[in-house]
Amino acid sequence: MSKLLIVGTVAFDAIETPFGQTDKILGGAATFIGLAASQFKVESAIVSVVGGDFPKDYLRLLSDREIDISGIEVIESGKTFFWSGRYHNDMNTRDTLSTELNVLAKFDPKVPVAYKNAEILMLGNLHPKIQKQVLDQMEVKPKLTILDTMNFWMEHSLDELHLILKEVDVITINDEEARQLTHEYSLVVAARKIHEMGPRYVVIKKGEHGALLFHDENVFFAPALPLEEVFDPTGAGDTFAGGFAGFLAKTSDLTFENIKNAVIYGSTMASFCVEKFGAERMLNLTGDQVYKRLQQFKNLTQFEIELS
Amino acid sequence: MSKLLIVGTVAFDAIETPFGQTDKILGGAATFIGLAASQFKVESAIVSVVGGDFPKDYLRLLSDREIDISGIEVIESGKTFFWSGRYHNDMNTRDTLSTELNVLAKFDPKVPVAYKNAEILMLGNLHPKIQKQVLDQMEVKPKLTILDTMNFWMEHSLDELHLILKEVDVITINDEEARQLTHEYSLVVAARKIHEMGPRYVVIKKGEHGALLFHDENVFFAPALPLEEVFDPTGAGDTFAGGFAGFLAKTSDLTFENIKNAVIYGSTMASFCVEKFGAERMLNLTGDQVYKRLQQFKNLTQFEIELS
Repeated sequence: MSKLLIVGTVAFDAIETPFGQTDKILGGAATFIGLAASQFKVESAIVSVVGGDFPKDYLRLLSDREIDISGIEVIESGKTFFWSGRYHNDMNTRDTLSTELNVLAKFDPKVPVAYKNAEILMLGNLHPKIQKQVLDQMEVKPKLTILDTMNFWMEHSLDELHLILKEVDVITINDEEARQLTHEYSLVVAARKIHEMGPRYVVIKKGEHGALLFHDENVFFAPALPLEEVFDPTGAGDTFAGGFAGFLAKTSDLTFENIKNAVIYGSTMASFCVEKFGAERMLNLTGDQVYKRLQQFKNLTQFEIELS
Repeated sequence: MSKLLIVGTVAFDAIETPFGQTDKILGGAATFIGLAASQFKVESAIVSVVGGDFPKDYLRLLSDREIDISGIEVIESGKTFFWSGRYHNDMNTRDTLSTELNVLAKFDPKVPVAYKNAEILMLGNLHPKIQKQVLDQMEVKPKLTILDTMNFWMEHSLDELHLILKEVDVITINDEEARQLTHEYSLVVAARKIHEMGPRYVVIKKGEHGALLFHDENVFFAPALPLEEVFDPTGAGDTFAGGFAGFLAKTSDLTFENIKNAVIYGSTMASFCVEKFGAERMLNLTGDQVYKRLQQFKNLTQFEIELS
């Protein structure tokens, strides 16, 4: 068992999909990461910031799952980060309707003392400068640092993104972002270029088309579970990252073989996330359901061709 | 070992991709199917039609691979079916520049006597009326009938397509065509509806995103091999079908477990096809290369998560 430190947003989301819409509900990258990782009963903590408007009940949803929330600063005079978006009919594309940074604008992350030696560090999608600040507060270099990012930082903070990339072991990024970062269409070539930027492991998330893991000349693929209906994709990428990081924290095994398994656990967690609005499904997930879905993943992908 | 009967076009293609363009080269659905199936050293025959302009050398490329070409009618006074197309930069979409039916317009398929009891029948993409004519000539109902089709027939011959669908065991179709045929966006729901139209097995090809196999409540997925470069996708779908049908003919095992393996062999064959223009790669493929690529598919997809 390894300690897992998570940095990222804890936020309000308002979501519109073809199936309906929500008021302000619990969201944020660190929320989804933390909820997914909590399935593995690991020691974890979140570093984030919220405003005085953030319900104590939401914080309790996290602490009830044994997530250390002492690193979530509450700025009583401020407002919580808010994002709202509308998904198109294909559920693969969305428009951002509103982004209010609020307390996130001056976020000064503080790693709890007990987590300055965390073995696994999950840098959720945030300004790369903030991600660097967190990494710099670690007293012991983590055994594995995982970074998630997005196109916005490539457009506005590319130099800072390149700086932090040199220091991380794993990057999780979607296919369009991988292409944007490298100016390469082929994901195989893009992964190689990203590898040269720092990360030993490159995970390219393709949404409904699954996820690819690249490491040296090795490549591994986990499909997304074919679902009758994707209800709301919000948080699926963060949930993937949380399942990935949580499984590695639980097993403390950082071999390539086990990182492949972590990709399968990430895909498994993400397959639940999209079934309901926001974090609702992740808040009602049982170990038995996870077990059954892993069996579905095995049935989906495993075959018996003997090569002598 | 089962006998495999293939019906489909034997044709000329002219192809433009971002990497270059060809003059008239060997093409056609039955050509790609036959070449892929020939890797399994099965007894196979092609039913098709060509014109007097079709080089004897091209026919010899097929007969050299032990494909029975007695069912390929040569109409000396006619011209061979010709298709030309141009691929866009993403290689996923293409424009048809020209389609000349020529001798195909009056194609009257004749199944060789020795193949009227073939255990496996592969109905390549053609007018569903022609596919039905071939099926009706069989003296013994094949153990497995596989049908490939395309959006054109849904638009122009939907009633005839539905008629033949009632009589086939497997359909191979791409994702957009599955959606068009069923008016369903979810491929899981689309597969269920197609199942109700007749086929017990529904294979949905997603190009670079792999292929899904549906059977009752079971689903299996084979990724496409991530390639540095897709040079020319022409014939990849037919090559998939040929690998699928050829493997089943070789093994004569029609259990779901083995049909999963056939999907892997289909994907393996298709991964070669796209590496060169037209059928060039398939004409220079060795058993050793196939073996190595199957190992790559295992590395790509197989993992070790024990569920007790």
